[in-house]
Amino acid sequence: MAAAAPPPAAALEQLSKTKMFGGHNLRFRHQSASLGCPMTFSLFLPASPASKLPVLYWLSGLTCTDENFIIKSGAQRAAAAHGVALVAPDTSPRGLNVEGEADSWDFGVGAGFYLNATNEKWKNWRMYDYVVKELPKVLTDNFEQLNTSCASIFGHSMGGHGALTIYLKNTDKYKSVSAFAPIANPINCPWGQKAFSNYLGTTKSEWQGEDDKFLAEQLLAGNFEEACKAAGAPLILRMQPGYDHSFFFIATFIDDHIAHHAQFLKSG
Amino acid sequence: MAAAAPPPAAALEQLSKTKMFGGHNLRFRHQSASLGCPMTFSLFLPASPASKLPVLYWLSGLTCTDENFIIKSGAQRAAAAHGVALVAPDTSPRGLNVEGEADSWDFGVGAGFYLNATNEKWKNWRMYDYVVKELPKVLTDNFEQLNTSCASIFGHSMGGHGALTIYLKNTDKYKSVSAFAPIANPINCPWGQKAFSNYLGTTKSEWQGEDDKFLAEQLLAGNFEEACKAAGAPLILRMQPGYDHSFFFIATFIDDHIAHHAQFLKSG
Repeated sequence: MAAAAPPPAAALEQLSKTKMFGGHNLRFRHQSASLGCPMTFSLFLPASPASKLPVLYWLSGLTCTDENFIIKSGAQRAAAAHGVALVAPDTSPRGLNVEGEADSWDFGVGAGFYLNATNEKWKNWRMYDYVVKELPKVLTDNFEQLNTSCASIFGHSMGGHGALTIYLKNTDKYKSVSAFAPIANPINCPWGQKAFSNYLGTTKSEWQGEDDKFLAEQLLAGNFEEACKAAGAPLILRMQPGYDHSFFFIATFIDDHIAHHAQFLKSG
Repeated sequence: MAAAAPPPAAALEQLSKTKMFGGHNLRFRHQSASLGCPMTFSLFLPASPASKLPVLYWLSGLTCTDENFIIKSGAQRAAAAHGVALVAPDTSPRGLNVEGEADSWDFGVGAGFYLNATNEKWKNWRMYDYVVKELPKVLTDNFEQLNTSCASIFGHSMGGHGALTIYLKNTDKYKSVSAFAPIANPINCPWGQKAFSNYLGTTKSEWQGEDDKFLAEQLLAGNFEEACKAAGAPLILRMQPGYDHSFFFIATFIDDHIAHHAQFLKSG
Protein backbone atom coordinates (compact mmCIF):
# COMPACT_ATOMS: atom_id res chain seq x y z
CA MET A 1 0.00 0.00 0.00
CA ALA A 2 1.24 3.43 -0.87
CA ALA A 3 1.83 5.79 2.03
CA ALA A 4 -0.73 8.59 2.19
CA ALA A 5 0.56 11.72 0.48
CA PRO A 6 1.13 14.63 2.84
CA PRO A 7 -1.69 17.18 2.66
CA PRO A 8 -0.88 19.92 0.12
CA ALA A 9 0.14 23.31 1.43
CA ALA A 10 -2.84 25.67 1.53
CA ALA A 11 -3.07 27.45 -1.81
CA LEU A 12 -2.47 31.16 -1.47
CA GLU A 13 -3.53 33.71 -4.06
CA GLN A 14 -1.37 36.84 -3.92
CA LEU A 15 -3.56 39.94 -4.28
CA SER A 16 -0.95 42.70 -4.05
CA LYS A 17 2.66 43.52 -3.28
CA THR A 18 4.00 46.98 -2.43
CA LYS A 19 7.45 47.96 -1.26
CA MET A 20 7.69 49.88 2.01
CA PHE A 21 10.63 50.62 4.32
CA GLY A 22 12.82 48.25 2.31
CA GLY A 23 10.43 45.32 2.79
CA HIS A 24 7.10 44.44 1.23
CA ASN A 25 3.43 44.58 2.11
CA LEU A 26 1.86 41.42 0.72
CA ARG A 27 -1.82 40.55 0.65
CA PHE A 28 -3.21 37.05 0.15
CA ARG A 29 -6.51 35.21 -0.17
CA HIS A 30 -6.98 31.57 0.75
CA GLN A 31 -9.82 29.15 1.48
CA SER A 32 -10.15 28.86 5.26
CA ALA A 33 -11.00 25.41 6.60
CA SER A 34 -11.91 26.82 10.05
CA LEU A 35 -14.31 29.42 8.70
CA GLY A 36 -15.58 27.75 5.53
CA CYS A 37 -15.03 30.78 3.31
CA PRO A 38 -12.23 32.59 1.48
CA MET A 39 -10.22 34.83 3.80
CA THR A 40 -7.70 37.59 3.13
CA PHE A 41 -4.71 38.47 5.28
CA SER A 42 -1.85 40.95 5.04
CA LEU A 43 1.80 40.26 5.72
CA PHE A 44 4.67 42.72 6.01
CA LEU A 45 8.02 41.07 5.32
CA PRO A 46 11.13 43.12 6.20
CA ALA A 47 13.98 42.99 3.68
CA SER A 48 16.14 39.89 3.19
CA PRO A 49 16.62 38.53 6.71
CA ALA A 50 19.90 36.97 7.78
CA SER A 51 17.96 34.51 9.92
CA LYS A 52 14.31 33.49 10.03
CA LEU A 53 11.91 36.27 10.95
CA PRO A 54 9.82 36.17 14.11
CA VAL A 55 6.12 36.87 13.65
CA LEU A 56 4.00 39.55 15.31
CA TYR A 57 0.23 39.10 14.85
CA TRP A 58 -2.02 42.16 14.81
CA LEU A 59 -5.74 41.76 15.54
CA SER A 60 -7.88 44.66 14.38
CA GLY A 61 -11.01 46.18 15.88
CA LEU A 62 -14.67 46.26 14.85
CA THR A 63 -15.40 47.07 11.17
CA CYS A 64 -11.77 46.63 10.07
CA THR A 65 -10.42 44.31 7.41
CA ASP A 66 -6.81 43.15 7.20
CA GLU A 67 -5.95 46.37 5.35
CA ASN A 68 -6.63 49.16 7.88
CA PHE A 69 -3.56 48.38 9.98
CA ILE A 70 -1.32 48.10 6.92
CA ILE A 71 -2.51 51.44 5.50
CA LYS A 72 -2.83 53.56 8.65
CA SER A 73 -0.61 52.36 11.49
CA GLY A 74 2.87 53.12 10.15
CA ALA A 75 3.96 49.90 11.92
CA GLN A 76 6.17 48.80 9.02
CA ARG A 77 8.90 51.31 9.93
CA ALA A 78 9.59 49.78 13.35
CA ALA A 79 8.96 46.24 12.11
CA ALA A 80 11.62 46.74 9.41
CA ALA A 81 14.04 48.23 11.95
CA HIS A 82 13.57 45.32 14.38
CA GLY A 83 13.40 42.59 11.72
CA VAL A 84 9.93 41.40 12.70
CA ALA A 85 7.24 40.19 10.25
CA LEU A 86 3.73 41.57 10.77
CA VAL A 87 0.64 39.45 10.11
CA ALA A 88 -2.83 41.04 10.02
CA PRO A 89 -5.85 38.75 9.55
CA ASP A 90 -9.36 39.92 8.70
CA THR A 91 -11.85 40.37 11.57
CA SER A 92 -14.52 37.79 10.66
CA PRO A 93 -15.75 35.38 7.97
CA ARG A 94 -17.26 37.20 4.98
CA GLY A 95 -19.60 36.32 2.16
CA LEU A 96 -21.39 33.45 3.90
CA ASN A 97 -24.76 35.19 3.62
CA VAL A 98 -25.88 34.25 7.11
CA GLU A 99 -29.18 36.07 7.71
CA GLY A 100 -28.48 39.37 9.48
CA GLU A 101 -24.68 39.06 9.27
CA ALA A 102 -24.27 42.62 7.95
CA ASP A 103 -27.17 44.33 9.74
CA SER A 104 -24.99 46.06 12.32
CA TRP A 105 -21.42 47.29 12.41
CA ASP A 106 -20.65 45.70 15.79
CA PHE A 107 -21.86 42.15 15.18
CA GLY A 108 -21.45 39.56 12.42
CA VAL A 109 -19.30 40.64 9.48
CA GLY A 110 -16.28 42.62 10.71
CA ALA A 111 -16.97 41.62 14.32
CA GLY A 112 -15.72 38.09 14.98
CA PHE A 113 -14.47 38.86 18.51
CA TYR A 114 -11.73 36.21 18.08
CA LEU A 115 -13.85 33.46 19.64
CA ASN A 116 -15.37 30.17 18.47
CA ALA A 117 -19.14 30.62 18.28
CA THR A 118 -21.24 27.79 19.73
CA ASN A 119 -24.61 29.03 18.45
CA GLU A 120 -25.43 26.88 15.40
CA LYS A 121 -26.45 29.90 13.34
CA TRP A 122 -22.97 31.42 13.68
CA LYS A 123 -21.03 28.16 13.47
CA ASN A 124 -18.64 29.58 10.90
CA TRP A 125 -17.52 32.32 13.27
CA ARG A 126 -14.42 30.51 14.57
CA MET A 127 -11.87 33.32 14.50
CA TYR A 128 -10.14 31.88 17.59
CA ASP A 129 -9.26 28.69 15.74
CA TYR A 130 -8.41 30.64 12.61
CA VAL A 131 -5.93 32.93 14.36
CA VAL A 132 -4.45 30.42 16.82
CA LYS A 133 -4.31 27.29 14.64
CA GLU A 134 -5.04 27.73 10.94
CA LEU A 135 -3.20 30.94 10.11
CA PRO A 136 0.13 29.93 11.74
CA LYS A 137 -0.05 26.66 9.73
CA VAL A 138 -0.72 28.55 6.50
CA LEU A 139 2.31 30.76 7.20
CA THR A 140 4.55 27.81 8.10
CA ASP A 141 3.54 25.97 4.94
CA ASN A 142 4.09 28.92 2.62
CA PHE A 143 6.87 31.14 3.98
CA GLU A 144 10.12 29.44 4.79
CA GLN A 145 11.61 32.78 5.82
CA LEU A 146 9.26 32.90 8.84
CA ASN A 147 9.92 31.31 12.21
CA THR A 148 6.29 30.87 13.24
CA SER A 149 7.29 29.20 16.49
CA CYS A 150 8.66 32.56 17.61
CA ALA A 151 5.54 34.71 17.75
CA SER A 152 3.86 37.50 19.72
CA ILE A 153 0.42 39.06 19.45
CA PHE A 154 -1.17 42.49 19.83
CA GLY A 155 -4.29 44.32 18.76
CA HIS A 156 -6.73 47.18 19.11
CA SER A 157 -10.14 47.41 20.77
CA MET A 158 -11.99 44.16 19.88
CA GLY A 159 -8.57 42.98 18.66
CA GLY A 160 -7.03 43.98 21.99
CA HIS A 161 -9.59 41.73 23.68
CA GLY A 162 -8.62 39.06 21.14
CA ALA A 163 -4.88 39.41 21.76
CA LEU A 164 -5.21 39.28 25.55
CA THR A 165 -7.58 36.29 25.63
CA ILE A 166 -5.62 34.35 22.99
CA TYR A 167 -2.32 35.01 24.74
CA LEU A 168 -3.58 33.98 28.18
CA LYS A 169 -4.92 30.69 26.78
CA ASN A 170 -1.74 30.01 24.81
CA THR A 171 1.28 31.27 26.73
CA ASP A 172 3.23 28.42 25.11
CA LYS A 173 2.53 29.82 21.62
CA TYR A 174 3.24 33.54 22.12
CA LYS A 175 6.25 35.26 23.70
CA SER A 176 4.46 38.49 24.60
CA VAL A 177 1.18 40.37 24.29
CA SER A 178 0.08 44.00 24.16
CA ALA A 179 -3.11 45.88 23.41
CA PHE A 180 -4.27 49.34 22.41
CA ALA A 181 -7.51 50.35 24.15
CA PRO A 182 -8.79 46.77 24.46
CA ILE A 183 -12.43 45.92 25.08
CA ALA A 184 -11.39 45.03 28.58
CA ASN A 185 -14.48 43.54 30.17
CA PRO A 186 -16.69 42.27 27.34
CA ILE A 187 -19.31 40.48 29.45
CA ASN A 188 -20.18 43.77 31.12
CA CYS A 189 -20.25 46.10 28.12
CA PRO A 190 -22.88 46.36 25.35
CA TRP A 191 -20.52 45.30 22.53
CA GLY A 192 -19.46 42.19 24.39
CA GLN A 193 -22.95 41.31 25.59
CA LYS A 194 -24.37 41.58 22.08
CA ALA A 195 -21.57 39.48 20.60
CA PHE A 196 -21.42 36.83 23.31
CA SER A 197 -25.19 36.32 23.62
CA ASN A 198 -25.47 35.78 19.88
CA TYR A 199 -22.30 33.77 19.27
CA LEU A 200 -22.34 31.77 22.51
CA GLY A 201 -25.99 31.76 23.61
CA THR A 202 -27.82 33.59 26.36
CA THR A 203 -26.59 31.47 29.28
CA LYS A 204 -23.94 33.72 30.79
CA SER A 205 -22.08 30.86 32.47
CA GLU A 206 -21.42 29.49 28.97
CA TRP A 207 -19.55 32.62 28.00
CA GLN A 208 -16.49 31.68 30.04
CA GLY A 209 -14.32 28.63 29.84
CA GLU A 210 -12.38 27.71 32.97
CA ASP A 211 -9.34 29.39 31.47
CA ASP A 212 -11.24 32.61 31.09
CA LYS A 213 -12.32 33.18 34.67
CA PHE A 214 -9.47 35.47 35.58
CA LEU A 215 -9.84 37.46 32.42
CA ALA A 216 -13.59 37.78 32.27
CA GLU A 217 -13.89 38.73 35.92
CA GLN A 218 -10.94 41.05 36.15
CA LEU A 219 -10.21 42.62 32.83
CA LEU A 220 -11.20 46.17 33.58
CA ALA A 221 -8.23 48.39 32.90
CA GLY A 222 -8.45 49.71 36.46
CA ASN A 223 -8.43 46.28 38.10
CA PHE A 224 -6.13 44.59 35.67
CA GLU A 225 -2.96 45.99 37.18
CA GLU A 226 -3.81 44.68 40.65
CA ALA A 227 -4.86 41.32 39.26
CA CYS A 228 -1.59 40.97 37.39
CA LYS A 229 0.36 41.89 40.50
CA ALA A 230 -1.52 39.27 42.51
CA ALA A 231 -0.82 36.67 39.81
CA GLY A 232 2.84 37.67 39.50
CA ALA A 233 2.28 38.58 35.85
CA PRO A 234 4.35 41.50 34.58
CA LEU A 235 2.26 44.36 33.17
CA ILE A 236 2.91 47.81 31.78
CA LEU A 237 -0.35 49.79 31.84
CA ARG A 238 -0.22 53.23 30.22
CA MET A 239 -3.02 55.77 30.01
CA GLN A 240 -2.57 58.40 27.29
CA PRO A 241 -4.60 61.54 28.01
CA GLY A 242 -6.23 63.22 25.05
CA TYR A 243 -5.90 60.40 22.55
CA ASP A 244 -9.01 58.91 20.98
CA HIS A 245 -9.80 55.41 19.66
CA SER A 246 -8.43 56.02 16.15
CA PHE A 247 -5.43 54.86 14.16
CA PHE A 248 -3.87 58.27 14.94
CA PHE A 249 -3.58 57.01 18.53
CA ILE A 250 -2.25 53.65 17.36
CA ALA A 251 0.31 55.23 15.00
CA THR A 252 1.57 57.44 17.83
CA PHE A 253 2.51 54.52 20.07
CA ILE A 254 3.02 51.64 17.64
CA ASP A 255 6.83 51.95 17.80
CA ASP A 256 6.78 51.42 21.57
CA HIS A 257 4.68 48.27 21.21
CA ILE A 258 6.84 46.78 18.47
CA ALA A 259 10.03 47.53 20.39
CA HIS A 260 8.45 45.82 23.41
CA HIS A 261 7.65 42.66 21.46
CA ALA A 262 11.01 42.68 19.68
CA GLN A 263 12.77 42.21 23.05
CA PHE A 264 10.92 38.93 23.63
CA LEU A 265 11.04 37.77 20.01
CA LYS A 266 14.81 38.26 19.80
CA SER A 267 15.54 36.41 23.00
CA GLY A 268 13.07 33.65 22.04
CA MET B 1 -16.86 109.62 8.91
CA ALA B 2 -16.00 106.36 10.64
CA ALA B 3 -12.84 104.61 9.54
CA ALA B 4 -13.50 101.44 7.58
CA ALA B 5 -13.44 98.39 9.84
CA PRO B 6 -10.63 95.95 9.07
CA PRO B 7 -11.87 92.97 7.06
CA PRO B 8 -12.91 90.14 9.39
CA ALA B 9 -10.67 87.11 9.66
CA ALA B 10 -11.92 84.32 7.39
CA ALA B 11 -14.44 82.25 9.35
CA LEU B 12 -13.19 78.74 9.92
CA GLU B 13 -15.42 75.84 10.85
CA GLN B 14 -13.52 73.14 12.73
CA LEU B 15 -14.56 69.70 11.47
CA SER B 16 -12.38 67.44 13.62
CA LYS B 17 -9.52 67.31 16.09
CA THR B 18 -7.47 64.20 16.92
CA LYS B 19 -4.35 63.93 19.03
CA MET B 20 -1.29 62.35 17.40
CA PHE B 21 2.38 62.32 18.40
CA GLY B 22 1.68 64.84 21.15
CA GLY B 23 0.16 67.35 18.71
CA HIS B 24 -3.18 67.54 16.95
CA ASN B 25 -4.61 66.85 13.51
CA LEU B 26 -7.16 69.58 12.87
CA ARG B 27 -9.54 69.81 9.92
CA PHE B 28 -11.34 72.96 8.84
CA ARG B 29 -13.85 74.19 6.28
CA HIS B 30 -14.01 77.79 5.03
CA GLN B 31 -15.49 79.73 2.16
CA SER B 32 -12.75 80.28 -0.42
CA ALA B 33 -12.76 83.62 -2.21
CA SER B 34 -10.33 82.37 -4.89
CA LEU B 35 -12.38 79.31 -5.75
CA GLY B 36 -15.91 80.48 -4.98
CA CYS B 37 -16.83 77.40 -2.95
CA PRO B 38 -16.33 75.94 0.53
CA MET B 39 -12.93 74.27 0.89
CA THR B 40 -11.53 71.93 3.52
CA PHE B 41 -7.92 71.75 4.67
CA SER B 42 -6.02 69.77 7.27
CA LEU B 43 -3.44 71.12 9.70
CA PHE B 44 -1.10 69.21 11.99
CA LEU B 45 0.03 71.33 14.93
CA PRO B 46 2.90 69.91 17.03
CA ALA B 47 2.57 70.31 20.80
CA SER B 48 2.96 73.66 22.54
CA PRO B 49 5.74 75.38 20.65
CA ALA B 50 8.26 77.53 22.49
CA SER B 51 8.41 79.83 19.46
CA LYS B 52 6.19 80.22 16.43
CA LEU B 53 5.96 77.17 14.20
CA PRO B 54 7.23 77.19 10.62
CA VAL B 55 4.79 75.84 8.03
CA LEU B 56 5.32 72.99 5.57
CA TYR B 57 2.66 72.76 2.84
CA TRP B 58 1.82 69.37 1.35
CA LEU B 59 0.15 69.20 -2.09
CA SER B 60 -1.55 65.89 -2.84
CA GLY B 61 -1.96 64.01 -6.10
CA LEU B 62 -4.91 63.22 -8.36
CA THR B 63 -8.11 62.00 -6.64
CA CYS B 64 -6.90 62.94 -3.15
CA THR B 65 -8.62 65.23 -0.66
CA ASP B 66 -6.84 66.97 2.21
CA GLU B 67 -7.26 63.79 4.30
CA ASN B 68 -5.20 61.14 2.47
CA PHE B 69 -1.87 62.60 3.55
CA ILE B 70 -3.01 63.00 7.15
CA ILE B 71 -4.27 59.40 7.34
CA LYS B 72 -1.63 57.53 5.36
CA SER B 73 1.74 59.32 5.30
CA GLY B 74 2.85 59.04 8.92
CA ALA B 75 4.35 62.54 8.45
CA GLN B 76 3.18 63.74 11.86
CA ARG B 77 5.93 61.80 13.68
CA ALA B 78 8.77 63.71 12.03
CA ALA B 79 6.82 66.99 11.99
CA ALA B 80 6.34 66.71 15.77
CA ALA B 81 10.02 65.89 16.27
CA HIS B 82 11.16 68.85 14.18
CA GLY B 83 8.52 71.30 15.44
CA VAL B 84 7.06 71.96 11.99
CA ALA B 85 3.34 72.49 11.25
CA LEU B 86 1.90 70.57 8.27
CA VAL B 87 -0.79 72.08 6.05
CA ALA B 88 -2.63 69.93 3.50
CA PRO B 89 -5.16 71.64 1.20
CA ASP B 90 -7.70 69.83 -0.97
CA THR B 91 -6.82 69.20 -4.64
CA SER B 92 -9.56 71.23 -6.41
CA PRO B 93 -12.78 73.15 -5.95
CA ARG B 94 -15.74 70.87 -5.20
CA GLY B 95 -19.51 71.11 -5.41
CA LEU B 96 -19.66 73.77 -8.12
CA ASN B 97 -21.56 71.48 -10.48
CA VAL B 98 -19.61 72.50 -13.55
CA GLU B 99 -20.78 70.22 -16.37
CA GLY B 100 -18.43 67.25 -16.63
CA GLU B 101 -16.42 68.15 -13.51
CA ALA B 102 -16.61 64.63 -12.10
CA ASP B 103 -16.62 62.61 -15.33
CA SER B 104 -13.00 61.49 -15.02
CA TRP B 105 -10.62 60.87 -12.16
CA ASP B 106 -7.77 62.83 -13.71
CA PHE B 107 -9.55 66.08 -14.60
CA GLY B 108 -11.93 68.47 -12.82
CA VAL B 109 -12.81 67.53 -9.24
CA GLY B 110 -9.73 66.20 -7.44
CA ALA B 111 -7.45 67.35 -10.26
CA GLY B 112 -6.77 71.08 -9.94
CA PHE B 113 -3.12 70.82 -11.03
CA TYR B 114 -2.30 73.86 -8.82
CA LEU B 115 -2.77 76.33 -11.69
CA ASN B 116 -5.14 79.22 -12.46
CA ALA B 117 -7.43 78.13 -15.28
CA THR B 118 -7.99 80.68 -18.05
CA ASN B 119 -10.76 78.78 -19.83
CA GLU B 120 -14.04 80.50 -18.81
CA LYS B 121 -15.75 77.20 -18.13
CA TRP B 122 -13.17 76.31 -15.47
CA LYS B 123 -12.75 79.81 -14.07
CA ASN B 124 -13.15 78.60 -10.48
CA TRP B 125 -10.16 76.29 -10.83
CA ARG B 126 -7.61 78.71 -9.30
CA MET B 127 -5.70 76.37 -7.02
CA TYR B 128 -2.48 78.32 -7.62
CA ASP B 129 -3.97 81.46 -6.08
CA TYR B 130 -5.62 79.43 -3.35
CA VAL B 131 -2.39 77.74 -2.27
CA VAL B 132 0.01 80.66 -2.79
CA LYS B 133 -2.14 83.58 -1.62
CA GLU B 134 -5.42 82.71 0.09
CA LEU B 135 -4.47 79.79 2.31
CA PRO B 136 -1.42 81.49 3.88
CA LYS B 137 -3.64 84.50 4.68
CA VAL B 138 -6.28 82.25 6.25
CA LEU B 139 -3.58 80.66 8.40
CA THR B 140 -2.05 83.99 9.40
CA ASP B 141 -5.47 85.38 10.37
CA ASN B 142 -6.46 82.36 12.43
CA PHE B 143 -3.38 80.77 13.99
CA GLU B 144 -1.12 83.06 15.96
CA GLN B 145 1.15 80.10 16.78
CA LEU B 146 2.17 79.86 13.10
CA ASN B 147 4.96 81.81 11.45
CA THR B 148 3.57 81.72 7.91
CA SER B 149 6.45 83.81 6.59
CA CYS B 150 8.71 80.83 7.28
CA ALA B 151 7.35 78.22 4.90
CA SER B 152 8.38 75.37 2.62
CA ILE B 153 6.41 73.21 0.19
CA PHE B 154 6.35 69.61 -1.00
CA GLY B 155 3.97 67.20 -2.69
CA HIS B 156 3.30 64.01 -4.58
CA SER B 157 2.66 63.35 -8.28
CA MET B 158 0.31 66.16 -9.45
CA GLY B 159 1.17 67.79 -6.13
CA GLY B 160 4.88 67.35 -6.82
CA HIS B 161 4.32 69.27 -10.06
CA GLY B 162 2.44 71.85 -8.00
CA ALA B 163 5.17 72.17 -5.38
CA LEU B 164 7.97 72.57 -7.96
CA THR B 165 6.14 75.11 -10.11
CA ILE B 166 4.87 77.11 -7.14
CA TYR B 167 8.30 77.18 -5.53
CA LEU B 168 10.10 78.25 -8.70
CA LYS B 169 7.65 81.13 -9.18
CA ASN B 170 7.85 82.19 -5.53
CA THR B 171 11.33 81.63 -4.20
CA ASP B 172 10.73 84.61 -1.91
CA LYS B 173 7.81 82.82 -0.22
CA TYR B 174 9.25 79.33 0.34
CA LYS B 175 12.56 78.30 1.90
CA SER B 176 12.75 74.89 0.21
CA VAL B 177 10.91 72.46 -2.04
CA SER B 178 10.76 68.70 -2.53
CA ALA B 179 8.61 66.25 -4.43
CA PHE B 180 7.73 62.57 -4.46
CA ALA B 181 7.37 61.17 -7.99
CA PRO B 182 6.26 64.50 -9.48
CA ILE B 183 4.48 64.80 -12.81
CA ALA B 184 7.70 66.14 -14.19
CA ASN B 185 6.90 67.22 -17.72
CA PRO B 186 3.15 67.84 -17.87
CA ILE B 187 2.99 69.33 -21.36
CA ASN B 188 4.35 66.10 -22.79
CA CYS B 189 2.31 63.57 -20.83
CA PRO B 190 -1.37 62.62 -21.21
CA TRP B 191 -2.41 63.84 -17.73
CA GLY B 192 -0.84 67.22 -18.26
CA GLN B 193 -2.10 67.61 -21.83
CA LYS B 194 -5.66 66.80 -20.81
CA ALA B 195 -5.54 69.21 -17.88
CA PHE B 196 -3.75 72.06 -19.62
CA SER B 197 -5.80 71.95 -22.84
CA ASN B 198 -9.02 72.12 -20.84
CA TYR B 199 -7.97 74.58 -18.14
CA LEU B 200 -5.75 76.81 -20.30
CA GLY B 201 -7.03 76.31 -23.85
CA THR B 202 -5.60 74.42 -26.80
CA THR B 203 -2.90 76.96 -27.76
CA LYS B 204 0.22 75.30 -26.38
CA SER B 205 2.17 78.56 -26.15
CA GLU B 206 -0.44 79.74 -23.62
CA TRP B 207 0.41 76.87 -21.30
CA GLN B 208 3.65 78.47 -20.18
CA GLY B 209 4.32 81.80 -18.57
CA GLU B 210 7.79 83.27 -19.01
CA ASP B 211 8.66 81.97 -15.57
CA ASP B 212 7.76 78.48 -16.63
CA LYS B 213 10.05 78.05 -19.60
CA PHE B 214 12.82 76.34 -17.72
CA LEU B 215 10.40 74.07 -15.98
CA ALA B 216 8.16 73.14 -18.84
CA GLU B 217 11.04 72.45 -21.19
CA GLN B 218 13.32 70.67 -18.79
CA LEU B 219 11.40 69.00 -16.06
CA LEU B 220 11.98 65.40 -16.98
CA ALA B 221 13.58 63.66 -14.02
CA GLY B 222 16.50 62.60 -16.21
CA ASN B 223 17.24 66.09 -17.51
CA PHE B 224 16.39 67.95 -14.36
CA GLU B 225 19.66 67.23 -12.61
CA GLU B 226 21.70 68.63 -15.52
CA ALA B 227 19.43 71.63 -15.82
CA CYS B 228 19.80 72.41 -12.14
CA LYS B 229 23.56 72.07 -12.36
CA ALA B 230 23.63 74.49 -15.30
CA ALA B 231 21.46 76.95 -13.37
CA GLY B 232 23.50 76.59 -10.20
CA ALA B 233 20.43 75.34 -8.35
CA PRO B 234 21.11 72.72 -5.68
CA LEU B 235 19.24 69.45 -6.23
CA ILE B 236 19.10 66.06 -4.58
CA LEU B 237 17.57 63.58 -7.03
CA ARG B 238 16.95 60.10 -5.68
CA MET B 239 15.57 57.11 -7.55
CA GLN B 240 14.12 54.37 -5.33
CA PRO B 241 14.03 50.99 -7.09
CA GLY B 242 10.99 48.81 -6.46
CA TYR B 243 8.72 51.44 -4.93
CA ASP B 244 5.40 52.24 -6.56
CA HIS B 245 3.32 55.43 -6.66
CA SER B 246 1.44 54.78 -3.40
CA PHE B 247 1.45 56.26 0.07
CA PHE B 248 3.55 53.24 1.13
CA PHE B 249 6.34 54.83 -0.93
CA ILE B 250 5.64 58.26 0.57
CA ALA B 251 5.55 56.94 4.14
CA THR B 252 8.89 55.21 3.62
CA PHE B 253 10.72 58.43 2.75
CA ILE B 254 8.63 61.15 4.39
CA ASP B 255 11.04 61.49 7.33
CA ASP B 256 13.90 62.33 4.96
CA HIS B 257 11.85 65.03 3.25
CA ILE B 258 10.70 66.63 6.49
CA ALA B 259 14.24 66.60 7.92
CA HIS B 260 15.41 68.26 4.70
CA HIS B 261 12.84 71.07 4.98
CA ALA B 262 13.43 71.47 8.72
CA GLN B 263 17.04 72.51 8.03
CA PHE B 264 15.86 75.46 5.96
CA LEU B 265 12.87 76.31 8.15
CA LYS B 266 15.00 76.45 11.30
CA SER B 267 17.65 78.69 9.77
CA GLY B 268 14.94 80.87 8.20
